[in-house]
Amino acid sequence: MKQVVTFGEIMMRLSPPLNYRLSQASSLEITYGGGDANVAAALAYLGVPAAHAGCFPDNAVGRAAAQQFQHHGVDMRHCVFQGQRLGLYFLEVGASLRASRIVYDRYDSAFANLQPEWFNWDEIFSNAQLFHWTGITPAISATAAQATQEAIAAARRLGLTVSADVNYRRNLWQYGQRAQDVMPDLVAGCDLVVCTEGDAEDLFGIKAEAGAENSFVSMSQQLIRRFPQIQQVIATRRETQSASHERIKGIAFSGGQYHETEFFDINPVVDRIGGGDSFISGFIYGQLTYPTLQEALTFATAASALKHTIHGDINLVTAAEVEHIVAGNTSGRLLR
Amino acid sequence: MKQVVTFGEIMMRLSPPLNYRLSQASSLEITYGGGDANVAAALAYLGVPAAHAGCFPDNAVGRAAAQQFQHHGVDMRHCVFQGQRLGLYFLEVGASLRASRIVYDRYDSAFANLQPEWFNWDEIFSNAQLFHWTGITPAISATAAQATQEAIAAARRLGLTVSADVNYRRNLWQYGQRAQDVMPDLVAGCDLVVCTEGDAEDLFGIKAEAGAENSFVSMSQQLIRRFPQIQQVIATRRETQSASHERIKGIAFSGGQYHETEFFDINPVVDRIGGGDSFISGFIYGQLTYPTLQEALTFATAASALKHTIHGDINLVTAAEVEHIVAGNTSGRLLR
Amino acid sequence: MKQVVTFGEIMMRLSPPLNYRLSQASSLEITYGGGDANVAAALAYLGVPAAHAGCFPDNAVGRAAAQQFQHHGVDMRHCVFQGQRLGLYFLEVGASLRASRIVYDRYDSAFANLQPEWFNWDEIFSNAQLFHWTGITPAISATAAQATQEAIAAARRLGLTVSADVNYRRNLWQYGQRAQDVMPDLVAGCDLVVCTEGDAEDLFGIKAEAGAENSFVSMSQQLIRRFPQIQQVIATRRETQSASHERIKGIAFSGGQYHETEFFDINPVVDRIGGGDSFISGFIYGQLTYPTLQEALTFATAASALKHTIHGDINLVTAAEVEHIVAGNTSGRLLR
Amino acid sequence: MKQVVTFGEIMMRLSPPLNYRLSQASSLEITYGGGDANVAAALAYLGVPAAHAGCFPDNAVGRAAAQQFQHHGVDMRHCVFQGQRLGLYFLEVGASLRASRIVYDRYDSAFANLQPEWFNWDEIFSNAQLFHWTGITPAISATAAQATQEAIAAARRLGLTVSADVNYRRNLWQYGQRAQDVMPDLVAGCDLVVCTEGDAEDLFGIKAEAGAENSFVSMSQQLIRRFPQIQQVIATRRETQSASHERIKGIAFSGGQYHETEFFDINPVVDRIGGGDSFISGFIYGQLTYPTLQEALTFATAASALKHTIHGDINLVTAAEVEHIVAGNTSGRLLR
Amino acid sequence: MKQVVTFGEIMMRLSPPLNYRLSQASSLEITYGGGDANVAAALAYLGVPAAHAGCFPDNAVGRAAAQQFQHHGVDMRHCVFQGQRLGLYFLEVGASLRASRIVYDRYDSAFANLQPEWFNWDEIFSNAQLFHWTGITPAISATAAQATQEAIAAARRLGLTVSADVNYRRNLWQYGQRAQDVMPDLVAGCDLVVCTEGDAEDLFGIKAEAGAENSFVSMSQQLIRRFPQIQQVIATRRETQSASHERIKGIAFSGGQYHETEFFDINPVVDRIGGGDSFISGFIYGQLTYPTLQEALTFATAASALKHTIHGDINLVTAAEVEHIVAGNTSGRLLR
Amino acid sequence: MKQVVTFGEIMMRLSPPLNYRLSQASSLEITYGGGDANVAAALAYLGVPAAHAGCFPDNAVGRAAAQQFQHHGVDMRHCVFQGQRLGLYFLEVGASLRASRIVYDRYDSAFANLQPEWFNWDEIFSNAQLFHWTGITPAISATAAQATQEAIAAARRLGLTVSADVNYRRNLWQYGQRAQDVMPDLVAGCDLVVCTEGDAEDLFGIKAEAGAENSFVSMSQQLIRRFPQIQQVIATRRETQSASHERIKGIAFSGGQYHETEFFDINPVVDRIGGGDSFISGFIYGQLTYPTLQEALTFATAASALKHTIHGDINLVTAAEVEHIVAGNTSGRLLR
Repeated sequence: MKQVVTFGEIMMRLSPPLNYRLSQASSLEITYGGGDANVAAALAYLGVPAAHAGCFPDNAVGRAAAQQFQHHGVDMRHCVFQGQRLGLYFLEVGASLRASRIVYDRYDSAFANLQPEWFNWDEIFSNAQLFHWTGITPAISATAAQATQEAIAAARRLGLTVSADVNYRRNLWQYGQRAQDVMPDLVAGCDLVVCTEGDAEDLFGIKAEAGAENSFVSMSQQLIRRFPQIQQVIATRRETQSASHERIKGIAFSGGQYHETEFFDINPVVDRIGGGDSFISGFIYGQLTYPTLQEALTFATAASALKHTIHGDINLVTAAEVEHIVAGNTSGRLLR
Repeated sequence: MKQVVTFGEIMMRLSPPLNYRLSQASSLEITYGGGDANVAAALAYLGVPAAHAGCFPDNAVGRAAAQQFQHHGVDMRHCVFQGQRLGLYFLEVGASLRASRIVYDRYDSAFANLQPEWFNWDEIFSNAQLFHWTGITPAISATAAQATQEAIAAARRLGLTVSADVNYRRNLWQYGQRAQDVMPDLVAGCDLVVCTEGDAEDLFGIKAEAGAENSFVSMSQQLIRRFPQIQQVIATRRETQSASHERIKGIAFSGGQYHETEFFDINPVVDRIGGGDSFISGFIYGQLTYPTLQEALTFATAASALKHTIHGDINLVTAAEVEHIVAGNTSGRLLR
Repeated sequence: MKQVVTFGEIMMRLSPPLNYRLSQASSLEITYGGGDANVAAALAYLGVPAAHAGCFPDNAVGRAAAQQFQHHGVDMRHCVFQGQRLGLYFLEVGASLRASRIVYDRYDSAFANLQPEWFNWDEIFSNAQLFHWTGITPAISATAAQATQEAIAAARRLGLTVSADVNYRRNLWQYGQRAQDVMPDLVAGCDLVVCTEGDAEDLFGIKAEAGAENSFVSMSQQLIRRFPQIQQVIATRRETQSASHERIKGIAFSGGQYHETEFFDINPVVDRIGGGDSFISGFIYGQLTYPTLQEALTFATAASALKHTIHGDINLVTAAEVEHIVAGNTSGRLLR
Repeated sequence: MKQVVTFGEIMMRLSPPLNYRLSQASSLEITYGGGDANVAAALAYLGVPAAHAGCFPDNAVGRAAAQQFQHHGVDMRHCVFQGQRLGLYFLEVGASLRASRIVYDRYDSAFANLQPEWFNWDEIFSNAQLFHWTGITPAISATAAQATQEAIAAARRLGLTVSADVNYRRNLWQYGQRAQDVMPDLVAGCDLVVCTEGDAEDLFGIKAEAGAENSFVSMSQQLIRRFPQIQQVIATRRETQSASHERIKGIAFSGGQYHETEFFDINPVVDRIGGGDSFISGFIYGQLTYPTLQEALTFATAASALKHTIHGDINLVTAAEVEHIVAGNTSGRLLR
Repeated sequence: MKQVVTFGEIMMRLSPPLNYRLSQASSLEITYGGGDANVAAALAYLGVPAAHAGCFPDNAVGRAAAQQFQHHGVDMRHCVFQGQRLGLYFLEVGASLRASRIVYDRYDSAFANLQPEWFNWDEIFSNAQLFHWTGITPAISATAAQATQEAIAAARRLGLTVSADVNYRRNLWQYGQRAQDVMPDLVAGCDLVVCTEGDAEDLFGIKAEAGAENSFVSMSQQLIRRFPQIQQVIATRRETQSASHERIKGIAFSGGQYHETEFFDINPVVDRIGGGDSFISGFIYGQLTYPTLQEALTFATAASALKHTIHGDINLVTAAEVEHIVAGNTSGRLLR
Repeated sequence: MKQVVTFGEIMMRLSPPLNYRLSQASSLEITYGGGDANVAAALAYLGVPAAHAGCFPDNAVGRAAAQQFQHHGVDMRHCVFQGQRLGLYFLEVGASLRASRIVYDRYDSAFANLQPEWFNWDEIFSNAQLFHWTGITPAISATAAQATQEAIAAARRLGLTVSADVNYRRNLWQYGQRAQDVMPDLVAGCDLVVCTEGDAEDLFGIKAEAGAENSFVSMSQQLIRRFPQIQQVIATRRETQSASHERIKGIAFSGGQYHETEFFDINPVVDRIGGGDSFISGFIYGQLTYPTLQEALTFATAASALKHTIHGDINLVTAAEVEHIVAGNTSGRLLR
């Protein structure tokens, strides 16, 4: 099978053990993650060949970050080791009514300072079938945005499918360009997007029609009209009960049809970071595997539900494990 | 008080910390357990003298396994140290909709290679009142099955009560004999058995009568008819909500009467391994202590519920702690 | 802002990791706490200057205990280092239906052996606005009771507000005086008390009138009649579902009016120790900050709810974090 | 083989991980030990049946302490569970030029408050060959001293060998009697004593003769003259290079002869606590096993050297492992 | 006693446990330190009132860093919470022939971005006797250099003693000014400097005279001639045997006299970071305490030797503990 | 650069933390290693492309083992996932005079049960320059020996260099064939061998000539005469001082010349497992890099010395780090 390729920043995540606060911690658990690389790693666990292109400082910290993804089976040969620092984030894990809380320390990272010419997309995509990116990448720096643009262009030229999680993070866009100016051109090159009504409004000024029966459908129709390359719009609906209890379902609009799954109940949540990345990676797997969108959507949502039970940013589950959930085995009976 | 004696294999259990997966773990928490020895250990905590007969490799690993049960107060003097390896199992602890998962590595263990003549049952039972075994033991090897047979015969000859948890594990029976051929003779020597409708059908071809009001009663009646030594059949009913939430009640059939307890709600489950072993050990304690079967059954079920809050295979609770639950104190108010 | 000053014993708390039992533990997690000092520390996190007066053994253990409160921002300059030992308690943390359990080892501590003259209250209170104590302190020893008495007298003389958590612990009063004889004089000097109906009956023989619509109001009215200095009586109502699930609301009686908050749901509970201390500290903060008692009570209850999600005895939360809960953000959505 | 019986206090030892100081620690590693019980446990590992008589608080802490010695194979059936608290000590482990440091918190322990009549020595010694005690036990309280006296008397009456580690600890004797008044009567009943020149001078006023060629011989001769029951006086000579580097040799005087071993070099020292206890337990084993005192002394010293490489108070080594050292295999080559 | 005040950056230090490499680590031990703040903290342990002025990001990470120094007893009230990020460094701890290795990630920190006017030196020094700074501070940014300059000027004006550890770090000076241009003016205001021959040559172009009997004396003489405010030049001589074995002695030149101590042997080294900071803090303490420079120098060197046995950047030792070493007790005998 | 390929078993290694004994451990640190795969991983760190062929059980344990080597950068695509169990070994890490001790549990592993036809050597070697194996592999099972034979034949046919660490382990050869019968044919196909005098005598009956000036030279000459394909014989000389202190030098015989390095002193030893594997991997790197054998040998020995400071079986060091040691920087000065 050909590779899925992702592009984006990988950060070190530092979190106090259990539910401790930073002021109590004498050690921090570390793992590494990034919204796009998490998709590559999850796909590798699902059995889909995956590669990631990124940029790391050329020191022990950067090497360790890249190695973590080699561990997960991601082809990291297209990564560049250049620059000073790895982006970081500190995570305090909440519980019940106390929300988890992130303190970012990611500015001026090696990835932010990448040069677009370091990435030869024709070579990177030489054995690829799909390119996936997230809205975080072009938010990081002008060069990162440019490289994303070039990657999308190359992917289209080479006939790859392009998917994106538009994932608008207001606070990230600090290098002088507006998301509203940058993102439309990028999204225009995509076949599949993860996008909520909020993202569509913030980024593209698209509002669900007043009185629309289904705001997601209304938004999706307008989005596809605006960006006709898009075939599928997907998202998750979350009913967050508390920091420890989550309910999610998957929704999709494609070919004029609306699809949704049942809700999956996750109580307790072990780790909610990367829930969206596991959803899109599950959907990509699902589309490669199942005949219907409904099946792909259900697989994606079950995969995302499982992710909430896994420590770290990455969905360390096999396809068989997701299928076990899809088959309705959510009661947690011991498997021997 | 005279001893309760158990016989069977003790394994090392290795599990990643918290809910980590094996591929994430840089250390494994270890404990030791076995379906029969867990009963002995739980009884020791309840104040009933208990001994275990087993077989361990004569090395640091085998010694450590046996010492763990000395720690818990089990008389290990009848154990034999001979052979090459200790059986192992790896446990990934699940959460919410992700089930816990066991990978066994127990074949060709020191216990599997035991010689029946290493166990002098007359001596082992010289100060005993009850012998307990599980269906796992005769599943391990022909010599283990033979030793079980000899133990039951000796126990009957010496006037001990014999109890068994029939616990049919299809995958274990790999040494060339069928459970269906071996188990009937063993169960025939028992006064008390833990047996579900599924076990009865798989092992003895006993099916609850179609249309029976209570399938457990129907099964139990047939079982007792077939094995008239049996006085009591007991089991737990589980309503497994998720890997983190369990509800259990105890059921029993004895003297032509059906008994059951109310449901106990366990949320979250700390560790579900050994839940059945704590039930039968609680029942044995209950029968030695209380005038009625109903009281014994309630004690057993409360003990099993408490086990789900204890790390490891063994129910580290005192009789007073179980009685506290039996008395309805399940709201978890701090005890000073 | 002027300081809040507390007085009382700080103990080392030793607990097995996670939900382990003492017999399984090869290490114990340590933290330090005391019913009064916890109030000072929580106030320091809320931004209110706080000082604590206490007594520690003059060794590495005593120094470490005091340093922990310096860490939290409490002014410890009025503490005395004299005596032999630090009081201890061992805590086994329960789960679901298994209650948490404390074993105290606190007799004959440095604090119990304090001499009242070591504390120059005029100096200690020189920059203070409020003095807070708990019913635990006079329970420890005759000299501790006497020092409490002197502190209250000085506080009144210097025009400080005095608050108390009456917190009757039957088992503690072992030095020859009865709580019923000691406490009334102390409570008589207070403006604000945390007191339940049970405490009022045990300590002062005050029973809610038979048939009273609201037993707390009835009790509070009598309490204020008996101790006319008291302006406000507050308490929490707990609906303890299990060791892992708690519901609390705040109640208050003041100026002839009854107030209560809605229930806050905490599931799972991370650590319930110090829940009361976080309530009173939240209330003190609230009174310094908000125009109405209702707002102070809501802040106090939200603060206490948050405390149940924090490891250790002390409520390590900022005012902004409590306000976030007060504003209804209890669904635990990730904060970036 | 008949049992060796020991009598004395077992404490919980709490130490920060690695070389951390108490003020840095958020957890403490715990183990349990006592100068006499350590001897019993080490003998159990060496294959000598061993029992310990002691007294523990009847709570989870006391039970855990006793269980630890069951783990090690010591017969704890003669222990009494009565009283309030377990003695504790805090240990900061030093390194190189920084010495390890102990803070005791052991006064008023369950053991200190024992009643001599709780121990029926005739029964305790019914299957015993040797009774061992240390000078710490009579230092703890008047009742502990009396029980020691009664134990020695019973041991002599029943024909047991009696050994003692006189181990004078000035700070411990605080209950109103002087070591100099209590110890002579106790030592008078011993066959074997561990005693240094310093102990002999402090306790019995015995000074090595000025100009004696060998001060240990001179002291021993006087000691035996004074207490003619004593057959053997043994001790270790330490050349402490640093907290991390120790050199020890064993010395003995018996039958008019002086014996000594070569020096054993220990670098690094893993844990020096219990070095003396492992020496005397090794000597007891050696006397039961080898024909000559020189062999026993070498075994004892090698055992003590090995103890310095073992975490905790207790010498967790087999006789074969000690013999491996005695045979000169101190170069630490990997054993497969 | 009046305060010693320090000024400089505090960083988070992240290191894998034990001797692990970053690529192996799943958690990092954290502590906080800075060359100047370490001096304040060590002085607080020695009993000298100490305050630190610095700048931290106004988030949970910055608060935790400042709290760590409150823990150690440093007055942090003059610290400013403003800016985005805390400087970090990653430390891999070596062993034997493998050197420890630091990866810095400290650029653009909150401290680097400080505004000089945030520090009101007259107020900060209102109760101070000595101001200490290091050459790291002016290397960080132009504003940090300016603030250092202003602090020195204020200190001189207010009659404080000024001390400096010139500590030239070539790689740090990256903001556009040369150390050789900035440092002379700063050093000119100092009474006491830690300076090696290498530093003097690099910073001031001062070379020991060819053929000088004692290069340190030659350098010091020239240094004092150039900066006549300087009364004392001190340094340590290190004979680094390996990452695990260090030998140090103290040297000083003052009043025309050369002083040196004996070598202190540290084997194994627990943590070498902060060895220089503990030397100067010991010297400051020594000068406040002892009549002679030789005594101060010996105290300083013993303090620094002890630091090598302490985890973290800060010398967590009391004056009594240093004096114990000064008195020759370096053999590491257990202290009870 | 073309790949180096290794073939052999990878085991899980389980060791108690620090220097704990198995009977004390409540958790085990895990890592994965194998004599040949360690070479591949070390080469990957040195920058040489490396692949490993092996066989793992198709379960979570086997996957985790393989992933560990992906983490280190080894190409694992030629590994087969088939069979029941992963070989294990338990390691107790000794200290000073106590040796480290291994308990193997590796029989009947997935690797032992491999089928030679699972490995297509022409494909595996399609991009390779060197094949390395150890004497452990043919010792495991007949099929493993046959696969080794086939690999060597293919390697010769395809023009690869072949290297071997003959590494005779008497206890391993248990499947019915003698090492003395199997090994000669395998060694005959090698260009480079690691072989000591002991190995040569045990395996090939080659004894250094009596009176030979250099026994290694004498042995090597005979070995080369017997197996004329061999160009180079190398080995390490160890002067094991204790479990914590090692001295090693490298020796080689090639082209009629004897070479040796100076001794490297390692004190303390962090982890001695894999010392030999790091030597041969260093030598392979050295030969690919340096013009002279002496340089390669020095690099190899320095690499092996560094390995003793690294936790786990694998030498996690870069070429630059080894060169730093080769350049004489063994004093362990902090690298910033």
